[in-house]
Order: sequence, then C-alpha cells, then structure tokens
Amino acid sequence: MSLPPIRSGTLYGVGLGPGEPDYMTLRAARVIADADIIAFFAKRGRPGHARTIAAELIGAGRREMPLIYPMTTEMPADSDAYRTSLAAFYEESVATLVAELCRGASVAVLCEGDPFFYGSFMHLWRRLYGRWPVEVVPGVSGMSGGWTRAAAPITWGDDILTVLPATLPEEALATRLAATDAAVIMKLGRHLPKVRRALETAGIADRAIYVERATMADERIMPLTALAGDDAPYFAMVIVPGEGRRP
Amino acid sequence: MSLPPIRSGTLYGVGLGPGEPDYMTLRAARVIADADIIAFFAKRGRPGHARTIAAELIGAGRREMPLIYPMTTEMPADSDAYRTSLAAFYEESVATLVAELCRGASVAVLCEGDPFFYGSFMHLWRRLYGRWPVEVVPGVSGMSGGWTRAAAPITWGDDILTVLPATLPEEALATRLAATDAAVIMKLGRHLPKVRRALETAGIADRAIYVERATMADERIMPLTALAGDDAPYFAMVIVPGEGRRP
Repeated sequence: MSLPPIRSGTLYGVGLGPGEPDYMTLRAARVIADADIIAFFAKRGRPGHARTIAAELIGAGRREMPLIYPMTTEMPADSDAYRTSLAAFYEESVATLVAELCRGASVAVLCEGDPFFYGSFMHLWRRLYGRWPVEVVPGVSGMSGGWTRAAAPITWGDDILTVLPATLPEEALATRLAATDAAVIMKLGRHLPKVRRALETAGIADRAIYVERATMADERIMPLTALAGDDAPYFAMVIVPGEGRRP
Repeated sequence: MSLPPIRSGTLYGVGLGPGEPDYMTLRAARVIADADIIAFFAKRGRPGHARTIAAELIGAGRREMPLIYPMTTEMPADSDAYRTSLAAFYEESVATLVAELCRGASVAVLCEGDPFFYGSFMHLWRRLYGRWPVEVVPGVSGMSGGWTRAAAPITWGDDILTVLPATLPEEALATRLAATDAAVIMKLGRHLPKVRRALETAGIADRAIYVERATMADERIMPLTALAGDDAPYFAMVIVPGEGRRP
C-alpha cells in the first residue's frame, strides 16, 4: 500500500497521538502540511488541545476552522438536552465542512490520540461517510502514550485488556476490574474517588498507576496510592498493567 | 517535552505501527535513520515483518542484527520446554545487545505495532530496564490499523472495550464477549472456529468484522459471516465495534 497525495474535496480525520508532537505519524504530518484548511475542536476561549499538539507543523498564514463545542458542562451526558445540543453542533459543523469540501478544499480535522477510539471526529465521520471522500489517519492512542511513559508494558502473553470509562457505576467498574488481567480507566476527572473504591473492591489498587498528560511537558505519573486528593483532570487515566507469561 | 537526539549506548524499542510505513511516527523514523544498529525479530529463513515495514527507511549499507526466534511451533505456550527455549533466546539476545551498547552503539529494535502491547520487545526490555538507557517509542497498534481500515469506529460514549487473545478457552471468550460493548480478538490463527462459536454464544456474531493484514497491500476485511474456511493467519483479528452514545 502506498498512500496518495492530499486530494481536493476530501475530509481527513488526523490522529495526532498522545501529545508529544514527534509521536505524530508521517501521514499525519503530511496531511497537516498539505491540507487547505485545518479544522479542530475546541472549547470557547481555549486554544484546543489538538491544535496545540500540531502547532509547530501548522505554522503561520494557514486557513483554520475552529469547531467550538456548545456549553454542556451542566448537562448529564445521558440527558435529552445534552444529546440535542451536541447533535445540533455536529450537524452545523458538518454543514460548514461540506460547504468547503464542495468548493474543492481539502480539510484536515485534528484529533487527539486515535480518531476511532472515543474520538469526537467519529460524530462528523458518521454523518459524512459514504457521501464524501474521507480518509482517517490512525494515531498512537493516549493510553499507549500512558503505558509507555509509565514504563508499564500493558499486556503479556494471553493477558486480557479491558478499557473502562470512569463514568461507569462503581459496581460495574469493580466487577470488570476483578475479571480482567490488565485495565485502563479513561476520563478520570471527578470520578477518581469512585475509581479508587472500585480498584480496592477488585483487590488491585496496589497495582494501579495514575497517569496525567503523558508524553507532555507537565506529565504526572505515580502509583495511584501516592496520589493525594480526590480530583483529577478529565483526560487523566489509571493503568493496571497485566502480569501474564514472561519467559 | 522535546525528544533528544539519538544517544550513544542507548537501546530503542521502536513501534512501527500496523504495517503501512506512513503510519510510523516521526520519532520512529528519526531513530531508524540515526541508530548505529538496526535489530529486529525474525523467524529463520524469513525477512522479518518489522524489517519489511521499515525497509524503505533503512536503505543499504546499514549494520543490521536479526534476532532469530528458536523453533517453538511444536511446543504448547504453557509448557516448560517453550518457556525455557524462549527464555534462553531472550537472554542471548540481551547479551548480544549489551555487548554493542557497551561499545557505545545506539541500537534500534524494530517492533510491529506498539512495543508495550503484546510485544516481544517487552521481554528484552524487562531484562535491561534500569540497567541501561532505554527509550520506548510508542506506535499505532495493529488493532487501530484494523478498525481504521474497517471503517469501524471502535468505542462510542461510555463503551467498554475488551481485548481478548483468541488463545483463551471458548467459554472464557464467550463470557467476556457477552459482557462487553466492543471487542477485539487478537492472534486468531487456528482458533477461528472456536472464536466463531464464542461470538455466536455471546449473540454478537453478526456484528463481527474479520481483519487480516490491515493497512498493507494485501489486506482482507469483511464481515466474519462472509469469511469461508476455518483457518486464519496468526496476525488476523476480529473486531466488534461498540454501539454507544451517538448524539
């Protein structure tokens, strides 16, 4: 396989990896360099994390298209209001993108980590796939950046890996944690105390590693038992490395 | 964070991604270009899959160090003979590497996918970590290449992802598959009939996608129900995409 040059009228979902710009793929760097428009998700008044990772490759004088999330912090993720608000945002974003694609522009949507692994880009993709040319560039996942920087190989031999959102109920977390060899708990944020309890219940709290902003300048990595406090950033995670076959 | 130049006397475990050379990271390309010695695992008489992925970046006239696996195909992976044979191989490989590191050489060990995710490099790493300078370069995982090329975003909203080696017993597979939102079944090979039965038992056979050599020239991707035969390559996988929240 050999990947083609950047094409007119094509949408690119570009995985940027875990944060360190050198962990971007060659394909991602190429798409960012050559696309007519650089689009990225951001919260109002913030630069956008993906935009920050790619900053050096974007340079000055490029055409940029920030996609600004609606304010949903007060809404439960399973509420109708949340769903309606986000759906309208994705529809609007797609309309804006389509207008540019119709004019023949190539558009690169910057994505943290890997676009098809819990990525916001998936919500644009599913509205366009089959209607427009789309290329997805896979990226190093945030969790891979985490276990690499934690010096914690995640799966050995026949280990089972379970990836759990911290948003799950405590009992569900504890049950899954007790039944797996290795685990990654994503989207930690305010769920940290619940995650601690679930790890205790599962009997694996002493193997848990806290990972925050891995591969970035201000990364924090430590045994979870050494972490003070009950709060963590949304993008922090807990890693429980497997202990499988090691000849 | 800014990654330093390639250093003398340092061992690099270099993730190459799923197979398409452009899915290598910028850091991987840099390490391969600058390292004194290029090491890679291979079976006797074979070029080595990792070596093949990196071929264009290695070029001619480089110093190469193939690490040739012992013949273990007849041994069960849980047997003492298998363990002893592989342990001796890893010890020998480490001794060879250390001899070069002592002389001040930088050595890049090429790794398919992501080095810390079911990677053979982990067995060298655990024998050297803390004794020698080691840098691990994370890579796009094989499964990420799989779900990207299958046009199958793997996890939505609060989906749980379970990664299962096909080597597990049928009942264990079926139980885990029934309890997860999304799944990847790795190392398919001769376990394909068992995996089919486990997916049927779990009631998700119709959602399963067969993925072989994703991102490479001869990739094969289809619904598992459309795949004829009872055998698959060792590196083939089955993907079951999640169906979580989609505003």
